Amino acid sequence: MQLSGKSLIGFRDGAPGNDVFHAFSPSSGEMIAPPFHSASTQEVELAAKLADEAFPAYSRITGSEKASFLRTIAAEIERVADQLVARAHQETALPEPRLRSELARTCGQLRLFASVVEEGSWTAPRIDRADANRKPIAKPDLRCKLVPLGPVVVFGASNFPLAFSVAGGDTASALAAGNPVIVKAHPAHPGTSELVGHAIRAGVQKCNLPEGVFALLFDSGTSIGRRLVQHPLVKAAAFTGSLAAGRSLFDLAVSRPDPIPFYGEMASTNPVFLLPGAVTTRGEKIASDLYASFTLGGGQFCTKPGLVFVRESPHLQDFLTVLREKVSASSSPTLLTRGIASAYEQVSAHRSREVHLDSLTRGKSSESKGPNTAAVALFETDISAFLANPSLASEHFGPSTLLIRYAVKEQILECARGLVGHLTATIQGTAEDLQEHADLIRILETKVGRIVFNGYPTGVEVCHAMVHGGPYPASTDPRTTSVGSLAILRFVRPLCYQDFPNFALPPELQNENPLGIWRLVDGEYVRASAC
Amino acid sequence: MQLSGKSLIGFRDGAPGNDVFHAFSPSSGEMIAPPFHSASTQEVELAAKLADEAFPAYSRITGSEKASFLRTIAAEIERVADQLVARAHQETALPEPRLRSELARTCGQLRLFASVVEEGSWTAPRIDRADANRKPIAKPDLRCKLVPLGPVVVFGASNFPLAFSVAGGDTASALAAGNPVIVKAHPAHPGTSELVGHAIRAGVQKCNLPEGVFALLFDSGTSIGRRLVQHPLVKAAAFTGSLAAGRSLFDLAVSRPDPIPFYGEMASTNPVFLLPGAVTTRGEKIASDLYASFTLGGGQFCTKPGLVFVRESPHLQDFLTVLREKVSASSSPTLLTRGIASAYEQVSAHRSREVHLDSLTRGKSSESKGPNTAAVALFETDISAFLANPSLASEHFGPSTLLIRYAVKEQILECARGLVGHLTATIQGTAEDLQEHADLIRILETKVGRIVFNGYPTGVEVCHAMVHGGPYPASTDPRTTSVGSLAILRFVRPLCYQDFPNFALPPELQNENPLGIWRLVDGEYVRASAC
Repeated sequence: MQLSGKSLIGFRDGAPGNDVFHAFSPSSGEMIAPPFHSASTQEVELAAKLADEAFPAYSRITGSEKASFLRTIAAEIERVADQLVARAHQETALPEPRLRSELARTCGQLRLFASVVEEGSWTAPRIDRADANRKPIAKPDLRCKLVPLGPVVVFGASNFPLAFSVAGGDTASALAAGNPVIVKAHPAHPGTSELVGHAIRAGVQKCNLPEGVFALLFDSGTSIGRRLVQHPLVKAAAFTGSLAAGRSLFDLAVSRPDPIPFYGEMASTNPVFLLPGAVTTRGEKIASDLYASFTLGGGQFCTKPGLVFVRESPHLQDFLTVLREKVSASSSPTLLTRGIASAYEQVSAHRSREVHLDSLTRGKSSESKGPNTAAVALFETDISAFLANPSLASEHFGPSTLLIRYAVKEQILECARGLVGHLTATIQGTAEDLQEHADLIRILETKVGRIVFNGYPTGVEVCHAMVHGGPYPASTDPRTTSVGSLAILRFVRPLCYQDFPNFALPPELQNENPLGIWRLVDGEYVRASAC
Repeated sequence: MQLSGKSLIGFRDGAPGNDVFHAFSPSSGEMIAPPFHSASTQEVELAAKLADEAFPAYSRITGSEKASFLRTIAAEIERVADQLVARAHQETALPEPRLRSELARTCGQLRLFASVVEEGSWTAPRIDRADANRKPIAKPDLRCKLVPLGPVVVFGASNFPLAFSVAGGDTASALAAGNPVIVKAHPAHPGTSELVGHAIRAGVQKCNLPEGVFALLFDSGTSIGRRLVQHPLVKAAAFTGSLAAGRSLFDLAVSRPDPIPFYGEMASTNPVFLLPGAVTTRGEKIASDLYASFTLGGGQFCTKPGLVFVRESPHLQDFLTVLREKVSASSSPTLLTRGIASAYEQVSAHRSREVHLDSLTRGKSSESKGPNTAAVALFETDISAFLANPSLASEHFGPSTLLIRYAVKEQILECARGLVGHLTATIQGTAEDLQEHADLIRILETKVGRIVFNGYPTGVEVCHAMVHGGPYPASTDPRTTSVGSLAILRFVRPLCYQDFPNFALPPELQNENPLGIWRLVDGEYVRASAC
């Protein structure tokens, strides 16, 4: 497929405009063809209007029809897998095996949501039947279920060109719930975005859905995204990226005359607690696995373990030796964009100058050093320096981590109490460690969306029980997740029917339970009819 | 019980301060003893600190313990029912039978949430079991459930001194979910608030819970409420009241360094569509029931039907005659506060002067006219005047409604498309009307939280399927309800455990399913164990 460089607005292509931008190879710094055209404000209007027009029909297609649509998108993506992976590799420098697995994950997400909407119980129907004889007044018949919100805006993320971008988790869950989606492509991988956009458009066409179900808008800057979040016809928005950008879009969403739900997944440092028993029994293994986790994907994961608390002990040396050796021997990954690489080196340089750092190990500079390469960094400090310098606790995006040595348990409890919100916290320990640190777990439960035991936070499983979210600033809304099937609840609201005749109710709420789904009938979960 | 006029901060009473205010009798305008003392900023700090300290313990008591606590509160309220109803009548002028039924509803709400937390499935556990043999990488074990957010601030509402105030729906759902609650009492019924506050305090004491589980703060103005919403230890807030006050608190909540969920239930005009078949077959009955609904409680319900669309037809006359007669013969209710009464008369006077009103019927002025009495008002206009004057669509709080005559169906579709968010929409019609107006229903489904067929929106059933909420400005968050058991989802977030040993998991997530609750295990709803 030939890339056009134009936005996809329903079945129409965007017009070529004056504002043109390119993708750049992170490895060579060279521009990649073709030029991409930023969308115009008229194109934003058109996309919003088409989405609004598509909503009534799309929100009411059956679960099976939506499932078929989501599966068609997955198949269309797989059809262009080779071109997609090659282009994504060009635009991101992420290794091809990683991109292949990200593609599989993206299609897996679409199929997971397909299975959820096909089954149908996600609409959470509740039925309270009438009681004409109730005193002092008769009880009406009340039935509610979840319904989609309306057009949803999704922002593509730089660090996951597939799984958190055009057909990523937010798009999948918004479409699954019955909402049209307008994606604002991330400008760092526009070609990848266009290819995926065509796959979704093909899905819309093959399934005979209204064209407004999907649009993809390009923009070299922020004005199109800002306009989308403020558009009166847009009913919710989801973003994955930096704290500054996420907060600024959140502020727009909540300052509207009619505020809309906004899901920003932003900054997380993902503290890891290496408890004494674990370090004693398997320090070298942990060093090796931790190194793999914080350097995975160039450390450009929102779940990268960026803070590692470890207790001073004679057993620590083996762990430290292996970890420092790994870092010293590491080659320098190529980061996604020049902006990310330079911010990484700026913070690294700043931290290197800090007097309270008592050790710094850096990886090798590459032999063929490209413009975006960044040396791996292991910073080490002690607990008092950490507590005295709050900036050390903030996210450092890229292949680094900060090791903090502590002497007594109370010190990590104090650190845990002082944490802001994070996506994850990780405990490495023995069963005894876990029992002895129940108080630490109790604190972490109030700070994060997911607690990992004897694993690593990177590698976010796409399943029903995943929570990828957490208290601010990990996200702007801790009540949801951006990964896993629970994310379908982001883009819905409950709607109640009072005393409606059976024929006029949506199938989910009809007496006969024609869809055979789980419902809460008079307070009991049943799959039976409510006749 | 003797009223003290002091805030209740845990088990301590607020200090007497310089800022003193009184309740006023809406009937006579006279001050009612005792004086009430506004809370100080130090008392806000203390309440927040105690709530934060209570959270770890309170959030982890069992469902049975919480149920017992909620039932104890209900019993404590019933113990002082006579004094409570008498005081509420003094402070609000609402009739005693209404207050008795509101008290029963308030206790019913507490008991409904008690049954929900006792049963336990509301925590929505999800379990995805590990698969060590999965390729290319082993699948971890992931388990999530809902957990409480932390201290919640609840604002008492003027129009429901019991059911939407100190121990109202928001307090019940926040406590049920495991959150400490700080209530800001509404200054129009401080004595009622204090009595209920003591009932909750007694519940905390009898159930041996930490004192910070509950606080009640008085304030004559807005500063304590604003401070509470901005307090770093407060994790969510809920408000029922005017659009201006609700939006201003919402703006504070989302402008915090760490934004928090804010649930404002605000303005709703609750459109009613009287379809032709209904008017033809039972016009007089509808007139009489509609009159009862819009004048119920002095028209001071958020669900008051304030817009009534009716088609021009020869059959309309009987309906109109009865409705006008009812209004003409009505005596004037006493409204809750001088502010509400004067705003009601101001808008009434403004509407009376509008040239596009083609009929105005007013109720009788009372013989013993008090300061807050307000004559019932029936405004009538036609569809073109309505569409030309957007202010007619806004909420007019008090005993009035606006009747809008239309000629052809397309006109109400246009009106429906132009509606902002409302709590409810109501259809009066025959089964044929409903079928012929399926397009109207489709539009209303996108505008409201609840659609009523052949009933009236006032009288909000407290049950599992109720949705009392809706798109902005009906609420600041359409994703939830403020009435019914679904409201427990307001004050929670999902938390996930990865690869935790069984002993270290909360009981809801343990293999054996010791609580016997419904769980989504590997994508299937089951009540069995997951061993």
